[in-house]
Amino acid sequence: MTPQTLHDPELRARVTWSLIAEPADPVALYARELLGPAAALELAERAEGGTLLRALGDTLPAAPSDPKDDPPHRRARRALERWRGRLARLDFEAVLDDAQRRGIRILTPGDPEWPELLDDLQHTAPHCLWAQGPGDLRALTHERSVAMVGSRASTPYGEDTAGALAAAFAAAGGTVVSGGAYGIDAAAHRGALAAGDGATIAILAGGLDALYPRGNTRLLERIRERHLLLSEAPPGTAPTRWRFLSRNRLIAALSHATVVVEASWRSGALSTARHADELSRHVGAVPGPVTSAASAGCHRLIRERGAVLVTDPAEVLDLLPGGPAAGEGRHAVQDELDLLSPADRRVLDAIPPRSSLTEARIGDEIGFSTQEVAAAVARLELLGLAARAGERVRRVHSAR
Amino acid sequence: MTPQTLHDPELRARVTWSLIAEPADPVALYARELLGPAAALELAERAEGGTLLRALGDTLPAAPSDPKDDPPHRRARRALERWRGRLARLDFEAVLDDAQRRGIRILTPGDPEWPELLDDLQHTAPHCLWAQGPGDLRALTHERSVAMVGSRASTPYGEDTAGALAAAFAAAGGTVVSGGAYGIDAAAHRGALAAGDGATIAILAGGLDALYPRGNTRLLERIRERHLLLSEAPPGTAPTRWRFLSRNRLIAALSHATVVVEASWRSGALSTARHADELSRHVGAVPGPVTSAASAGCHRLIRERGAVLVTDPAEVLDLLPGGPAAGEGRHAVQDELDLLSPADRRVLDAIPPRSSLTEARIGDEIGFSTQEVAAAVARLELLGLAARAGERVRRVHSAR
Repeated sequence: MTPQTLHDPELRARVTWSLIAEPADPVALYARELLGPAAALELAERAEGGTLLRALGDTLPAAPSDPKDDPPHRRARRALERWRGRLARLDFEAVLDDAQRRGIRILTPGDPEWPELLDDLQHTAPHCLWAQGPGDLRALTHERSVAMVGSRASTPYGEDTAGALAAAFAAAGGTVVSGGAYGIDAAAHRGALAAGDGATIAILAGGLDALYPRGNTRLLERIRERHLLLSEAPPGTAPTRWRFLSRNRLIAALSHATVVVEASWRSGALSTARHADELSRHVGAVPGPVTSAASAGCHRLIRERGAVLVTDPAEVLDLLPGGPAAGEGRHAVQDELDLLSPADRRVLDAIPPRSSLTEARIGDEIGFSTQEVAAAVARLELLGLAARAGERVRRVHSAR
Repeated sequence: MTPQTLHDPELRARVTWSLIAEPADPVALYARELLGPAAALELAERAEGGTLLRALGDTLPAAPSDPKDDPPHRRARRALERWRGRLARLDFEAVLDDAQRRGIRILTPGDPEWPELLDDLQHTAPHCLWAQGPGDLRALTHERSVAMVGSRASTPYGEDTAGALAAAFAAAGGTVVSGGAYGIDAAAHRGALAAGDGATIAILAGGLDALYPRGNTRLLERIRERHLLLSEAPPGTAPTRWRFLSRNRLIAALSHATVVVEASWRSGALSTARHADELSRHVGAVPGPVTSAASAGCHRLIRERGAVLVTDPAEVLDLLPGGPAAGEGRHAVQDELDLLSPADRRVLDAIPPRSSLTEARIGDEIGFSTQEVAAAVARLELLGLAARAGERVRRVHSAR
């Protein structure tokens, strides 16, 4: 947070919203978009539910926690209730002091470090981001950032694949974005860290004051020392499942493409993929054995949701904007017969593996004239695939 | 071959073409399509290259064995040369007698057993088919036939998967079509045979008089005893690589969909998939570990050629005409949160795994009113996921 943020009422209001509303609180986001952060906050602090409702109109979206058929005025009143409980206890300056002491900075729109990628989230863009580490968010995500995510319940196959893909992508100058969780996330972060200059960002669901999960503390500390930790939740926020799910939209938004390495049929990683899809970013998925439940979600993404099947680092790069993605193919679709002309292949195939034949006999077998066979044999000799021994032709066994 | 075939000059000419021309000889196929089998044969028997060329016009397609920039009159002359060498040695009646003695019947268009599926091949439709076994080709392929093909160099994973998919498809009344080769083909045939009444057809590249490959003799004999062996090559034809590739179009044509179970990057199974694609039949491919070279061709089909990723027997059925194939999804796309309402999930997530909280404390943590928490806890209690103990709420640990 720059001094400017502290004094700009709109930016200060954004930080306050981050402190009093849940990340994906739809009424808060709606009020902010409609009225601007400061005016919306003023209403939240002073107005009654009716006033808030009148200001917002009756198109107020329902929160995921709202019952169905819930009238707008009840939703507005409940939203106020949610915010005011926290507003009453809020000590804004103490929060900022604490963050500063911990080396946590606050990013808001307009900061040089605030990436345009977040604008794609439109009305669900975070109020602000809490960041820690030497990495510059905008620079790290400017051209080559890819989310690599997946199940906590990963297999060694998935972890190896995540690590290898992340290492290669980071070594190619890319930033690996993930969620810092056990399993695939951790393997992706580790792969990126292992790749010399490889950059990686962990976006956490809870506050940056308490690294979660505990078992990844050392890993997250290394990312914090060398690159960047992010959260849209202020310090002191516990990482609940709810916050994990809304955090996933940030992983998707801060990445030019998302690769799911392993995911069970209902993995949370699929929500990251859905966010990426909604943002019109490419989604890749790594296949695995059909017998592995840890790959079922990846197969589902490829089968049902148009994810691009990804098998190697080059195919990850292909997902970036401007890459061929899939279908168009980095590899020209090459006929299996292209390596050898069909005529030459027919002649070669007519020669028994461990015997030899005359050219006349070969021609008879495949319906070629002797001249045609002779020409093919000459070419096969040049390629080192056949050899003449007197009148007879035999194969030369190569690695082929 | 019915007595009618023997006496109908067109059908008799078709059988002769099968005896003197390679399966995919483009001049023979072109002449047959343009002039009809009998008139084309008469030209082949009597005419000079110039006459043949005048009859066929100058649009004569080149054979794969022809050099580029080869003028049509040279192609016509070479075609004549190919056919006449064999015509000179042909003893039509002896071939038929031999086939009959071996129990090999000849199928031609118009036979009740000739399936309409073959008409989709148009100008590359076989002249006739040589068939052996009690199965009726038309009945076996009428509604539910699927090709299951793949590498000879298969892995246990691929063989197990092929066997399981084939067994389930055959048990569902389907016919598994394959090429009788080692590896995936054999596993698919075996899976179908193992499924009680499961039907399977092996389409061979060589003549039915010598079952190939030798190591699959017993398997092919069982298919011949119980179902059907097919070839477009007459008895006495050796199975060269060239004939394998043209045989693949028959596997694709006689199947309503093609599933590639394992295939290396340049596997011949990819040619079967390409034929199926050209025939507008669905192509499915089974994924595997990205580290397995035996799955590289399958991944390529999914990535680059629009094949549908297939993981289980139900997804094989989906490939049949009228099935949802993919994208549309047999499984409704279900949000990971659907199982529990978001509000209830938030409340549940706020309860520590091995501790308990008051409802007021839960509400404070997630920004819910106490009434909202109480309602959610009531629902969670009903679902057996939470329990009240005095004023406090704790989780109930289920299998979830």
